[in-house]
Amino acid sequence: MAEHAADPSHPRYQSLLMRKRLEQAAKKGMLADSAMIAHGRGEAYDYLLGEQTIPSAMAATREAAARLLTAENPVISLNGNAVALAGKELLQVASMLGCPVEINIFYRTPKRMEALLSHLNAINESEALGVEILGHAPDAKIPGLEGPRANCHQDGILNSDVILVPLEDGDRCEALVAMGKDVLVIDLNPLSRTARTASVTIVDELTRVANNLIETIPSKPNVTAWDNNSALQSALNHITESMSERFD
Amino acid sequence: MAEHAADPSHPRYQSLLMRKRLEQAAKKGMLADSAMIAHGRGEAYDYLLGEQTIPSAMAATREAAARLLTAENPVISLNGNAVALAGKELLQVASMLGCPVEINIFYRTPKRMEALLSHLNAINESEALGVEILGHAPDAKIPGLEGPRANCHQDGILNSDVILVPLEDGDRCEALVAMGKDVLVIDLNPLSRTARTASVTIVDELTRVANNLIETIPSKPNVTAWDNNSALQSALNHITESMSERFD
Repeated sequence: MAEHAADPSHPRYQSLLMRKRLEQAAKKGMLADSAMIAHGRGEAYDYLLGEQTIPSAMAATREAAARLLTAENPVISLNGNAVALAGKELLQVASMLGCPVEINIFYRTPKRMEALLSHLNAINESEALGVEILGHAPDAKIPGLEGPRANCHQDGILNSDVILVPLEDGDRCEALVAMGKDVLVIDLNPLSRTARTASVTIVDELTRVANNLIETIPSKPNVTAWDNNSALQSALNHITESMSERFD
Repeated sequence: MAEHAADPSHPRYQSLLMRKRLEQAAKKGMLADSAMIAHGRGEAYDYLLGEQTIPSAMAATREAAARLLTAENPVISLNGNAVALAGKELLQVASMLGCPVEINIFYRTPKRMEALLSHLNAINESEALGVEILGHAPDAKIPGLEGPRANCHQDGILNSDVILVPLEDGDRCEALVAMGKDVLVIDLNPLSRTARTASVTIVDELTRVANNLIETIPSKPNVTAWDNNSALQSALNHITESMSERFD
């Protein structure tokens, strides 16, 4: 597949580029064993969305930008796939917001943490973004979670009021909501527990969302009376409309 | 994940078992780089089906059994994921039908072919199934395909009248239909090119289909006037019904 990824006119260029980023990240030891399967699930849901940012997802992205801009202590939580797929773009978002990012992974090993931190630090330096990158020295725990995935920084996730968590697992999303945080998630499956639990769910592909945030933040959108269930149903309706009477 | 897979009461037992089979196959060199991503896509569609055999899929499975039973030269085509996930069950189906299986993979390398053949031969021997396993010495080509993936056996795929192809790619499915064969596919995505091109599409998870075939074949079902588009729309309707008014 890698040979196609160099040609932007290839109809699957974007999808092949994402796979290439994951393959490179896997070689660097940044990913869990389940990373490729998780990415495949995302590909399937994105296919059903038509591999595009649908209107309800754009509205959710604007809402997320508004909440991050008005937060007192915003933070962006990053896992392995998020760093691999959109590490640079998400650091740009953090730089625009002046907020830290924190690496918070499900299968935490010193080797994976080091690979992820070194990848992000290299981007941070080469792009002169000046983002505070956390995750190396957790000094607090997310209540209600067991094991190393509960570990976090007091000055990062623990004390944040608004948190952007791309590609989150359901347990952790619930734990963050239970802490009273405003939890903004990016999840291609509108039926997942994460999607249903979050304060604002962006049903869209991660790199598209990151680029939309970069475009949206400078316009300083306002916080609205957000109805997340209505946005989720809009995403489902978009999928079901493309499925109805297909084979008549 | 492996530690959970031993416990059949775990709600994700079946799914974790499939992942374990794929991990073991990957270690043996049986899989292409894209195998895990393809499996993840399948997981997403299976989630939308409720991880169950829906009625239209059971009807398609019976139709496939009927056509395989009345074929003159039936064959089962196997790729890496099919061998990893349901190699034993599909060999049992071939044994019941008295037909050969043929390994036919997209990314054909001698090493992968050897790993797949040796895995299948071991099952064939230990279960005393007596199935003819092809793929080791291709002497023909599927017209319209380029490169090594066109390679096939004259006594297998080339001269078959009915072919069961689990997890097929779209190009090869089209090429087999163009040869005038009755092409029976197993594909969890009812919108894929493979699903839309095949003669009979079973929208179901591979191991469930294999076990359903093993149960169905002894009852010798009859061939019907099969409307594949109607079956595909049934599968889509099943998915969309589970999505409508979810968030009211």
